[in-house]
Amino acid sequence: MPSIKVAILGFGTVGEGVYRILQEKREEIKESTGFTVDVVSILVKDKAKRRKPIQGAKFTDDIQEIWSNPEIDVVFEAIVGEEPAYTFLSEAIEKGCHIITANKKMFAKHGPALLKHAGFRNVQVGFEATTAGGVPIIRTVTNLVAGDRIKRIQGILNGTSNFILTKMRKEGSSFQAALLHAQKNGYAEADPADDVDGTDAFRKLMILSSLAFGRQPDWEDVPVIGIDHLESIDIIDASKGDLRYRHVADIWKDEKGKLQATVGPVLIGADHPLFSIDGVDNAIIVDTEYLGPLTLVGPGAGMYPTGSAMIADLLHIIRQHESVLVLN
Amino acid sequence: MPSIKVAILGFGTVGEGVYRILQEKREEIKESTGFTVDVVSILVKDKAKRRKPIQGAKFTDDIQEIWSNPEIDVVFEAIVGEEPAYTFLSEAIEKGCHIITANKKMFAKHGPALLKHAGFRNVQVGFEATTAGGVPIIRTVTNLVAGDRIKRIQGILNGTSNFILTKMRKEGSSFQAALLHAQKNGYAEADPADDVDGTDAFRKLMILSSLAFGRQPDWEDVPVIGIDHLESIDIIDASKGDLRYRHVADIWKDEKGKLQATVGPVLIGADHPLFSIDGVDNAIIVDTEYLGPLTLVGPGAGMYPTGSAMIADLLHIIRQHESVLVLN
Repeated sequence: MPSIKVAILGFGTVGEGVYRILQEKREEIKESTGFTVDVVSILVKDKAKRRKPIQGAKFTDDIQEIWSNPEIDVVFEAIVGEEPAYTFLSEAIEKGCHIITANKKMFAKHGPALLKHAGFRNVQVGFEATTAGGVPIIRTVTNLVAGDRIKRIQGILNGTSNFILTKMRKEGSSFQAALLHAQKNGYAEADPADDVDGTDAFRKLMILSSLAFGRQPDWEDVPVIGIDHLESIDIIDASKGDLRYRHVADIWKDEKGKLQATVGPVLIGADHPLFSIDGVDNAIIVDTEYLGPLTLVGPGAGMYPTGSAMIADLLHIIRQHESVLVLN
Repeated sequence: MPSIKVAILGFGTVGEGVYRILQEKREEIKESTGFTVDVVSILVKDKAKRRKPIQGAKFTDDIQEIWSNPEIDVVFEAIVGEEPAYTFLSEAIEKGCHIITANKKMFAKHGPALLKHAGFRNVQVGFEATTAGGVPIIRTVTNLVAGDRIKRIQGILNGTSNFILTKMRKEGSSFQAALLHAQKNGYAEADPADDVDGTDAFRKLMILSSLAFGRQPDWEDVPVIGIDHLESIDIIDASKGDLRYRHVADIWKDEKGKLQATVGPVLIGADHPLFSIDGVDNAIIVDTEYLGPLTLVGPGAGMYPTGSAMIADLLHIIRQHESVLVLN
């Protein structure tokens, strides 16, 4: 049975999710692809930290130990922040490994360069997990780009913000109280700044922009506003008029073909597809020439949704390489 | 420049949509895949009928004329009804052609056999357009099946029924008046029986069942109820209690692993993802082990959405055959 050898960089929530799903779905993956997938190395910061025992894989804190293994086919990256993630993935591509990343901060900035580099080296880049967690928006947009034309993408791309806005509207909570509740329930990071000031949604929008329009607008030209200045009284007042605040990231081509983008709270009415999206879900509307608006809604984060998105990337890479038939 | 030769069987709304998109997107498809796509033959019932002039392609009413051309790579089928569509597609597979179909009636029944046949002959079957028109539910479920486990699929799969229910609720129209309005606006067939009695939604559910669970339940075991017996007074009463009737096709595995399915009107509350889906849209919720519920909403029918779904299948087939790299 041919085997695919995998390294996982980072073993936080997402990295562990990837590992667990690969173990749990070992037989199904074998059956559906014809390959066993073996995790051989896991890069961690602190090798000495106590962890649940891991079958087969070896923990290491030295990236060179991973690169010295010529057998590795695919590198999963689940590190937070731009560096050393970008350097590691560039090295992985140079070694001829396919890469799969969940790192939105790194990918918003360095994604275009990584994709170009991967093209030269004939390896593939999976980045489904960078945007809207378990919602297969990257695959969907990729499929739409070739045979259709994307006019606009609008979405709730930050689950934490949406959870807080929902709580403020439904319970009249203050922003601070709703944020605290989100943190207690694991829906917000210890440092939630990027989530509530719009930066996180902005980054995901830039990733979608590269994919859908082949480029990003100048970052400085995009107004990015968070939800941290909203008062619950405003939100409740709006809802009395059957309007709701949603934190929406929005990008479209104007009549001159110029990319326009905004990120911020928007008042929307009951007919809008984003009106009913409550809680931690993400939702994205892709408006195209032929399909008209297509809406995807699902979990924007979490160990299993994000891990599952990365496994979907892996399966896609395997399937691409399986088919060695050529059109007659 | 390598060329892919295509035949289109049937030149109604859907067949013409495929033809038009292939013309309009010729350059984009060439750029993104490296192939030109040429429609060489179009099968019609009446060759003498007056039509807008067609570049390059030849109309024929003789399927043998198409099979006698050894150059054809891909056959698009947009005929209504089981036969002769099933026979034609079986012959296409036998000739070594990839097939792409929009025919839900034929595919609900003969899909499993066609897929098996295609497997033997090493050709591919695209059937995105059979279910929920432009909503990429087939691709999404296909991707989810390998690395996740689907627990349940629930959806509004018939846009005509949903349009009628929406109109009855919002305007207090009778079923008959709402149906007439749908027909006048092109949202319902001249013979709307299959749409309003639940048969059409049932067929799409069976297609999804084969894909998600590898089999279909016994057709006789599935209760199928339409919307044709509903009174507008019941619908308005329900909406006063903040409930809405939706026509829902539903399939899941019970505790014993047995497939259970129902098709019929269901009263749902404001928290349900299908509550807000008004008009001719389709919506599908896929509940999986890792992702949790993922919802897709979009146009369930129409020349361009359905044609676009078939082109997406074509692009997928081309991409599968492009990649001749093998994992190291």
